[in-house]
Amino acid sequence: MSITDKSTDSTTDKRADWIAVDWGTSRMRAWAMTDGGETLASASSDKGMGSLAPHQFEAALLADIGDWLSAGRTTPVVACGMVGARQGWKEAAYRAVPCKPAPELMSVPVTDDRIAVYLCPGLKQQVPADVMRGEETQVAGLLAAHPGFEGVVCLPGTHSKWARVIDGQLSRFQTFMTGELYALLATQSVLRHSVGAEGWDDVAFASAIAIALQSPAAVSGRLFSLRAEALLADLAPESARARLSGYLIGLELAAARAYWGGQSVAIIGASALGRHYATALQLLDARSEIHDGEALTLKGLHAAYQQITGV
Amino acid sequence: MSITDKSTDSTTDKRADWIAVDWGTSRMRAWAMTDGGETLASASSDKGMGSLAPHQFEAALLADIGDWLSAGRTTPVVACGMVGARQGWKEAAYRAVPCKPAPELMSVPVTDDRIAVYLCPGLKQQVPADVMRGEETQVAGLLAAHPGFEGVVCLPGTHSKWARVIDGQLSRFQTFMTGELYALLATQSVLRHSVGAEGWDDVAFASAIAIALQSPAAVSGRLFSLRAEALLADLAPESARARLSGYLIGLELAAARAYWGGQSVAIIGASALGRHYATALQLLDARSEIHDGEALTLKGLHAAYQQITGV
Repeated sequence: MSITDKSTDSTTDKRADWIAVDWGTSRMRAWAMTDGGETLASASSDKGMGSLAPHQFEAALLADIGDWLSAGRTTPVVACGMVGARQGWKEAAYRAVPCKPAPELMSVPVTDDRIAVYLCPGLKQQVPADVMRGEETQVAGLLAAHPGFEGVVCLPGTHSKWARVIDGQLSRFQTFMTGELYALLATQSVLRHSVGAEGWDDVAFASAIAIALQSPAAVSGRLFSLRAEALLADLAPESARARLSGYLIGLELAAARAYWGGQSVAIIGASALGRHYATALQLLDARSEIHDGEALTLKGLHAAYQQITGV
Repeated sequence: MSITDKSTDSTTDKRADWIAVDWGTSRMRAWAMTDGGETLASASSDKGMGSLAPHQFEAALLADIGDWLSAGRTTPVVACGMVGARQGWKEAAYRAVPCKPAPELMSVPVTDDRIAVYLCPGLKQQVPADVMRGEETQVAGLLAAHPGFEGVVCLPGTHSKWARVIDGQLSRFQTFMTGELYALLATQSVLRHSVGAEGWDDVAFASAIAIALQSPAAVSGRLFSLRAEALLADLAPESARARLSGYLIGLELAAARAYWGGQSVAIIGASALGRHYATALQLLDARSEIHDGEALTLKGLHAAYQQITGV
């Protein structure tokens, strides 16, 4: 199923100069772009990397971007994310940190001569072992939007990342499974009976953050308390939700203190999750600023595109 | 599907005096017992409490224990576990700690006059909020097997429990979701690609225990490292398995230090998991002794049966 988010009327007289693609495990999003980095149209589908065999990627891409192409012209397509993983279209080998986040692109052979496809490699860190695919493009976008940026970047998500940027380079990073842990506990564990799918409780969240920072080990015992309090004291589902989120984000912040302590943090992701991280950091007297994730992905892909074309 | 674990030949001339049942969320196990506490036969089925509506419990029970009954005689059936939960056969209200673990039983109306069914209530603790159903019967069994026992009991499992026993009473307890977290992470998260379903690595386990005890917060960052090390350094699946187990058990032990610190611990459960807890405690210079879980369940149910009959 493809969903075109914006009208593509404008593209009949104004074809894409190039196409930006964020291709993750479960979704693919594409944007028709101008050389200057303006967005003409966008599309998204659920044909994520996880559901495709290598030979299926080209057709999945063309199904969504075909309208943006011109016969007789080769349009560059620049894609970041899990599309470049070993199980993806073609493996784009990790580059080792420290390095500039704006990548050297890897070309992928295609059969349709209307496109030339380039993948952004992910980053790796040997000790402690860590990897990222996609987030490096957002950090590159942050540097493109704020030249000279130095400091700490937090990218909340299924696998949230903390990264340090010094002298234009991504010097080190660490991944936390906080988002995936939250989803597993909230929807698959015994806590699913007690944790609401919506609603929020600011006080409960703040209290959980404080507990996790003060005594990280206690979190492992506090989780089941959410179920027990629901049984014994009618804990509200929205409060359980905010506390579960607070315990897990708090545990991450306790471990990531070396990143955010005494720093101003650039949070990438203007979602509710990004705002929860900002709130938590504020509770810990750390400053943060939220940046829109999609905008930075496009800026990072644009920076990569400029490397190809020399625009 | 019913599985009779032992031959029931002996029961044709020696019917059960009473029947012991351990009825959990996913399984039901039953034993034909003598007044003296000897086992004559056993059976088990996958008709756990989670798959039955209240009116289906009696038929599910009779399907497995029918052969052990005599017409014209009422055989007492004593059951512990989730069968007494609000979503079970009939709710057996939690008793509040501190209290003796051997319960006052709750009778359940049945239609077949060959049986009289009694459920063991679980235990609750108001602050911090916590509940148990089934483990209290094993603690009662421990006290029956070792009269005068005082100290700390650890019951590893999906939801592991730590309990303190003083003067014949279960005084306080705490539940950790360690087993459920392990199962979710090992089989449903991104770690499923890297964590083996079997095999073990003693050195990796010991190292993970040490890390978790030294820096509990670090565990949240170490989890994704298992995936990254598999990708970058071919981490062996059995080592990833032992490390994941070590991180999670270590996090639990860091939080449960007030229970085991300076104490000898009675571990209930002679499974591989029970041995892992014993190994971890040994690494932390704490003594422990492992007790067979099924034997203690039967001793606990026998103690409960004796309350009915005055045997």
